Amino acid sequence: MPQSAISQMMDLAKKVPGAISLGQGTPSFSTPSFIWKTLYQESKQNHSLGKYVNGYGDPLLISEIAKILQKKYHLEVNPEKEIYITAGAISGLATAILSFIDKGDEVIFLSPGYPLHLGQIIIAGGKPKYVLLDEKNHWHLDTSLIKKAVNKKTKMLILTNPNNPTGTVFPKEQIEELAKIVLKNNLILLLDEAYEFLVYDNVEFFSPLQLKELKDNLIVCKSFSKEFAMTGWRLGYIYASSRFLEKINKIHTHLVICAPSISQKAAYFALKSKQGKKATAFFVKEFIKRRSLICQRLKKMEKIFSFVKPQGSYYIFPKYHFKIDSFSLAKKILYQAKVITIPGSAFGPNGEYHLRFSFTAEEKEINLAFDRLEKFFS
Amino acid sequence: MPQSAISQMMDLAKKVPGAISLGQGTPSFSTPSFIWKTLYQESKQNHSLGKYVNGYGDPLLISEIAKILQKKYHLEVNPEKEIYITAGAISGLATAILSFIDKGDEVIFLSPGYPLHLGQIIIAGGKPKYVLLDEKNHWHLDTSLIKKAVNKKTKMLILTNPNNPTGTVFPKEQIEELAKIVLKNNLILLLDEAYEFLVYDNVEFFSPLQLKELKDNLIVCKSFSKEFAMTGWRLGYIYASSRFLEKINKIHTHLVICAPSISQKAAYFALKSKQGKKATAFFVKEFIKRRSLICQRLKKMEKIFSFVKPQGSYYIFPKYHFKIDSFSLAKKILYQAKVITIPGSAFGPNGEYHLRFSFTAEEKEINLAFDRLEKFFS
Repeated sequence: MPQSAISQMMDLAKKVPGAISLGQGTPSFSTPSFIWKTLYQESKQNHSLGKYVNGYGDPLLISEIAKILQKKYHLEVNPEKEIYITAGAISGLATAILSFIDKGDEVIFLSPGYPLHLGQIIIAGGKPKYVLLDEKNHWHLDTSLIKKAVNKKTKMLILTNPNNPTGTVFPKEQIEELAKIVLKNNLILLLDEAYEFLVYDNVEFFSPLQLKELKDNLIVCKSFSKEFAMTGWRLGYIYASSRFLEKINKIHTHLVICAPSISQKAAYFALKSKQGKKATAFFVKEFIKRRSLICQRLKKMEKIFSFVKPQGSYYIFPKYHFKIDSFSLAKKILYQAKVITIPGSAFGPNGEYHLRFSFTAEEKEINLAFDRLEKFFS
Repeated sequence: MPQSAISQMMDLAKKVPGAISLGQGTPSFSTPSFIWKTLYQESKQNHSLGKYVNGYGDPLLISEIAKILQKKYHLEVNPEKEIYITAGAISGLATAILSFIDKGDEVIFLSPGYPLHLGQIIIAGGKPKYVLLDEKNHWHLDTSLIKKAVNKKTKMLILTNPNNPTGTVFPKEQIEELAKIVLKNNLILLLDEAYEFLVYDNVEFFSPLQLKELKDNLIVCKSFSKEFAMTGWRLGYIYASSRFLEKINKIHTHLVICAPSISQKAAYFALKSKQGKKATAFFVKEFIKRRSLICQRLKKMEKIFSFVKPQGSYYIFPKYHFKIDSFSLAKKILYQAKVITIPGSAFGPNGEYHLRFSFTAEEKEINLAFDRLEKFFS
């Protein structure tokens, strides 16, 4: 059980004063001030605000989420039984994996993929089964490889869409193909859609949620961390059939009792208000600029790096053109160039010889980081 | 894997309007207003307040905790390596169990004990080994039973002190005996001290933390939930040797990434300020009154109930003198008397024919609940 490479790099970076972070995916933005203010006002009149939230979560928040799901995906949602508030999307994913994966079960992991999913599979006693995404084909998914990977022990497939670390938005046809395999083999499709709000260039975002036939095989984990700059608030939710949520409720209670009550109320205010939508729109606009900038700076280093332009999320996963393992390279870059990056090997077997850069930092920071990288590589 | 009886009863109670809760241990107090105010002020100037906290937790909070541990137990604490901030004590306990218990490992569970520990053992694939506490001897611990229960598969022993649901404060000699068994068999002693601040009648509270020889076998989980009326904030911490914390760090990251940043800052303000100490002192004073009241009301029902007076925590675990299983009785009481209680069977094999009452409600509520109980039993 390795330490997550992301937290490992962030830990090492603590001893490098002045290091610029292209590491952990923490947006530079502060939580919008209206959220703090509304929450403070609420605390003066709502004497339960700091107390445990029972059941599946704050009913007001759940009702807002139900409205969004109904509007966005034309779903018929039963708010009382099909939505569960979690202590962050990660807590939702960990709970789902611990709920349904037992010792020896296999879980299909699309590589490169998010390393915490890998660790979660291992904590549950499961076995990750790698299916490689194809860099030459924009990190897309060859579903024939999934068909080959499925066997009697396969219980679950994890899909992160947009993908972390590649920024891939998986096309509709691939998701439809995937859905057929899921249904044929009665797998659970565990969906991490934390970056759904961040899709570029009018690329179509197609969610498995739109395939009604998947309903009984689908567990969807969403986050409030990125959309509202609330990474520290630890809040997300699961949408799944009531059969899944009954088990998930039991496990989540044992792991953390409930998602933070204060964060649940804050997210409710964020979802309900125009200011919340405005804040997200501003973040997206900023990320569009940052993505252009990082692609531009990487292009200027084409002897060192090649990359697939991300269509979603705030990550880019360039390949470097020389033979040094990515963890050694990330450490050299940290200590010599004072830039935090995440080694590609953390993201699965075909992640080696890549680095993950997040473009969550401000433009001037990204520029400074690349000035340092250019100097380092020269 | 059963649903926690506590959350089960709280769920059932939602459909009983006007029910009074002697159920879940949620103090009636609101989070003190200075915490909300200080946090709001902090949000105006600290732009990282809503972001992920890396590493083992907020260094300012960790440093305050280290000071308290040093002062209270005369420990030499290494703040950087021996304190880890968790998303509530439950999150700390779940993480510790998932870190060190594998399939087939046995964990000694003192019964009656806190049901979430039982579930956590099962989630990790472990096997609870019950050691019964003796009601006739004030729910104390017969360490000879522990000696008998230990075998090659035994990895861990969980001690909740003061105990939930019995309110027992374990005497020094029993803890010293226990420590010998732990050391002789190289077990992990997992300590849940969430109610440490709440000990009555000048009873001596002796913590295994005071036994320096236990250091490498001890994982201590503490909570901010009760001391500062912050149950919904999801914050606690682990004190343990660096060897344990390295593994715990990995697992906690995979379960929830980090404890809520806002709660970490709020707890720092609470620990550092005189107002925090004043708030806790007020809560303790109130709980002393509520304990007297509930004991008095139970004594008046001596044909129905007998009980051991709790020395700590805000729970009492009376035995009832007739043959109906505790879950059926708790449901009857809920539906017919509109009082929420927790069935004793949830707390282990010798919990049957008991109910757990929490005295977290205000005195007038406790009185009203007992008026209803008296009527119900007549």
